[in-house]
Amino acid sequence: MSDLKRVHNFNPGPGVLPLEVLQEAQAELLNFKGTGMSVMEISHRSKEFEAVIQTAEADLRELLGIPSNYKVMFLQGGATLQFAMLPMNLRAAGASADYVVTGSWSKIALKESKKLGTARAAANTEADGFNCLPKSLDLDPKAAYLHFTSNETIHGVEYFSEPTPPDGVPLVCDTSSDFISRPIDVSKYALLYAGAQKNAGPSGVTVVIARDDMLARTPENLPVMLDYKTLAESGSLHNTPPSFAIYMVGLVFKWAKKVGGLAAVEKINREKAGIVYNAIDESGGFYRGHTVPEARSLMNIPFRLPSEELEDTFAREAKKNDLIGLKGHRSVGGMRASVYNAMTIEGAKELAKFMKEFQKKNG
Amino acid sequence: MSDLKRVHNFNPGPGVLPLEVLQEAQAELLNFKGTGMSVMEISHRSKEFEAVIQTAEADLRELLGIPSNYKVMFLQGGATLQFAMLPMNLRAAGASADYVVTGSWSKIALKESKKLGTARAAANTEADGFNCLPKSLDLDPKAAYLHFTSNETIHGVEYFSEPTPPDGVPLVCDTSSDFISRPIDVSKYALLYAGAQKNAGPSGVTVVIARDDMLARTPENLPVMLDYKTLAESGSLHNTPPSFAIYMVGLVFKWAKKVGGLAAVEKINREKAGIVYNAIDESGGFYRGHTVPEARSLMNIPFRLPSEELEDTFAREAKKNDLIGLKGHRSVGGMRASVYNAMTIEGAKELAKFMKEFQKKNG
Repeated sequence: MSDLKRVHNFNPGPGVLPLEVLQEAQAELLNFKGTGMSVMEISHRSKEFEAVIQTAEADLRELLGIPSNYKVMFLQGGATLQFAMLPMNLRAAGASADYVVTGSWSKIALKESKKLGTARAAANTEADGFNCLPKSLDLDPKAAYLHFTSNETIHGVEYFSEPTPPDGVPLVCDTSSDFISRPIDVSKYALLYAGAQKNAGPSGVTVVIARDDMLARTPENLPVMLDYKTLAESGSLHNTPPSFAIYMVGLVFKWAKKVGGLAAVEKINREKAGIVYNAIDESGGFYRGHTVPEARSLMNIPFRLPSEELEDTFAREAKKNDLIGLKGHRSVGGMRASVYNAMTIEGAKELAKFMKEFQKKNG
Repeated sequence: MSDLKRVHNFNPGPGVLPLEVLQEAQAELLNFKGTGMSVMEISHRSKEFEAVIQTAEADLRELLGIPSNYKVMFLQGGATLQFAMLPMNLRAAGASADYVVTGSWSKIALKESKKLGTARAAANTEADGFNCLPKSLDLDPKAAYLHFTSNETIHGVEYFSEPTPPDGVPLVCDTSSDFISRPIDVSKYALLYAGAQKNAGPSGVTVVIARDDMLARTPENLPVMLDYKTLAESGSLHNTPPSFAIYMVGLVFKWAKKVGGLAAVEKINREKAGIVYNAIDESGGFYRGHTVPEARSLMNIPFRLPSEELEDTFAREAKKNDLIGLKGHRSVGGMRASVYNAMTIEGAKELAKFMKEFQKKNG
């Protein structure tokens, strides 16, 4: 691979994957484990694919410490389909669900939930521009569940300790953009879900981790692809799963174990985010972070420059320096550096160096 | 690639992919079109990915001759999710839909449809063991649509000309296992859908082709991932699409064009299926095809041997000869040779040769 060009990829998702994961996938793309077939060409009922999906699940259970009374599912449709499946399965007819709204994604989750029944905002920080966590929650003690988004990808707001639901109310979390980025206590959650395309793999697979009592809530006669109970009982093999994407998340889980598990991954993530936040904080106001310091995401770092013109120049010149994907989401504007698990410390340092040089020239 | 081992892959899906498609994907897996990123790592909003999805759509439109008043969508969840999305979008409250039941898949499609409203069988060949097409249809002139499965993957029953619905009743087709295997007249259909993992690519993406008036039927307030109208209007980019799977189907479409388009693809498919059916027909009853000759699938060829013991031996010895994936579905038993687009003529010949030799030894 002497001609291999690789950039520093700050895309918000799909985003950077570990180089050694891509290299392993490339090496065996035409002949998976001596089968004479690509992993894309083998049957999802074969013993070879069973090993792929079972190893992926076992490694994820080890990484996150998932208790045995939880099922792991590898589904399709992204977090956005989960916004619908969740109330379809967990909220009984007539019941209401609570949502903590801290950014674009939790806002959409609430909107989708309302299409299918009753849901309310236990908090909403939109008036603050989604730049913080809520100071307090207005909780329904009878809620079917309390939903929150552990990391808002667009607004860069992250929860580092879970909100506490009332006794008996299950805690549900969209962890798409900080999934496997640090250890969490899964036993605090009733259900977690994550689109893989940030920290865990390519797009096209969604990981759902559900406590057994949540699966017992699935009503009769849901369409089978929207039915957690059937999907969990089939081991994600009710129909043909997205097998290549599952294979890839399995390689990423294996890589995260090799790095040293999620405590080691978090340490590196804190170092990388620290490098970028320092570049913002030491700029004397040239760079302005979107998020209040106590809620700053370790994954997505949105920031502004003094003008939109400078922001355009920044994105353009960064790209010339092989720093890719730094344009912010149109709803927030400015820049956003996504520093997922597979972003290297070197990449974060290159970005900070570029930020300092850019400020020197344009400040 | 001197150590490349490749087998003859008769898997029913996921199944064989064109070798040159896999080689192209492998070559650029770490650096897509000079971006310094894998196609899995680029943003679905980037101009590079826009080119991927737009080229895939344009090539498919050319291959199938899709009229301009049809939209093409690249969705998730397989044909099984379409079994639910279809009535959710196309069947108004209180209306009924007709289904032609010719095998396991159309039977499940009808079952899923009934979960969500009224549906009936316009025909059902289960009493014949799903080995034929229906002699006649009992059609509802007011049906919301008439659904049929153009190729039953498990039973090997294929429609070579579409059933004719009553005037004004839209024709809807699950074409998962004969998609892009031969030319069809798309203008006869109101909606077609296909899981990609047979002829068109890896699992994890479902192609839906819908006439504009069908999209106008989508009711208000469907969850967005189940809403054809929104998904079509967003160009399949409402949320993060299964980008690698879309890239792969794009490569397969390009390959099919290079083969000479669908007329050329059909000619090769007829030759391959002919080789295997001849081996059955010339065996003097040692091999018995499941399907009546006039409905024999060009894609999936289920057949039995004189005993289950011989069938087990056949599968085992075939595998030793690098003929893979020949075990039939448990519901039909026996063997099944799936000879999708990417199966080579050489592979079909090797299978026929093996069948003759096996009969000589065991007949």
